[in-house]
Amino acid sequence: MTPSTINVRTSKKNQLIDITSEVESIVRSSKISGGVCYVYVPHTTAAVTINENADPDVRDDIIKGLEAIVPYDLDYDHAEGNSPAHIKSSIIGITESVFIENSSLVLGTWQGIYFCEFDGPRARKVYVKVVGRS
Amino acid sequence: MTPSTINVRTSKKNQLIDITSEVESIVRSSKISGGVCYVYVPHTTAAVTINENADPDVRDDIIKGLEAIVPYDLDYDHAEGNSPAHIKSSIIGITESVFIENSSLVLGTWQGIYFCEFDGPRARKVYVKVVGRS
Amino acid sequence: MTPSTINVRTSKKNQLIDITSEVESIVRSSKISGGVCYVYVPHTTAAVTINENADPDVRDDIIKGLEAIVPYDLDYDHAEGNSPAHIKSSIIGITESVFIENSSLVLGTWQGIYFCEFDGPRARKVYVKVVGRS
Repeated sequence: MTPSTINVRTSKKNQLIDITSEVESIVRSSKISGGVCYVYVPHTTAAVTINENADPDVRDDIIKGLEAIVPYDLDYDHAEGNSPAHIKSSIIGITESVFIENSSLVLGTWQGIYFCEFDGPRARKVYVKVVGRS
Repeated sequence: MTPSTINVRTSKKNQLIDITSEVESIVRSSKISGGVCYVYVPHTTAAVTINENADPDVRDDIIKGLEAIVPYDLDYDHAEGNSPAHIKSSIIGITESVFIENSSLVLGTWQGIYFCEFDGPRARKVYVKVVGRS
Repeated sequence: MTPSTINVRTSKKNQLIDITSEVESIVRSSKISGGVCYVYVPHTTAAVTINENADPDVRDDIIKGLEAIVPYDLDYDHAEGNSPAHIKSSIIGITESVFIENSSLVLGTWQGIYFCEFDGPRARKVYVKVVGRS
């Protein structure tokens, strides 16, 4: 299947945005009943992660944790001043692979798929590809 | 192939458990001779990683390192008190993809596949899917 | 497709090396027009990441950031003294999956694929597998 695109509009410097329903909708439209769904972020200061879908505080805590872990005050060389965002992108990663069974994503009970903005606000894209049997 | 499930019983708060032989056994049973084996953790305070299989001290050091990197004393919002475990899950990641050739996993000489518990002890699951040619 | 191998010769302790053109060349040779390209590092003190391809300072800043994040002076057990390199490998990860359309990698405008050395200098390998339709 040709990759589909999800457009994401972020509103903060650091932000986790739930894209689970958009990904699920692409899986349903694909008519693939069993296979693998790939989520890919084509940016270098953003990422994708799978984490808790119940308490939104977890998203804020992931951002807080990463802010504490990745130093802002290092002697960075990159002139744009967004080196911490590039580092977060490589730490979290820009791809996820989720299984598909019965035409649905096989997520754990508490799992949702989150686009991670580290250098917003910006207009962003997420590519989704579904591979498997009809 | 429908995903297979590996049941993992963890005994500590933080623990890396070798699941290489269980994954290898699922690959052998699949009769797939060449392809890709996907390992997926359906939890939000656990992860999967591939790292050294020889000296078990490396596993302890990975836990020690993550304990030092992810702060416990931040002003976290999530009431369950396990925000550091959620952060570790997103940092390490919940998926791995390993190639299959000659009906076996193509791992490096020193590589094993490890389930990572960050909020144990618990009963956990790992999903494994094998895709390829028979 | 049987995995192809890219040989990488690193010259520093910590180093990010651009392997995009080598991966692209394997995709072209595969005659696969649409699908997924998997990049796999069979080492436990190295990794692969996708990040900025324009300003080489970003690569240096990623190394600087990881050096600041992963402590060298913990009470590590592993006798070889390279525990920080093992930890970095698990944090960055050893696999990437990139889509293929029109016989080319679907990378973002600013994205390149980088082999990450954390315990060099060494001779290293990267495995690449291309799956899809001709």
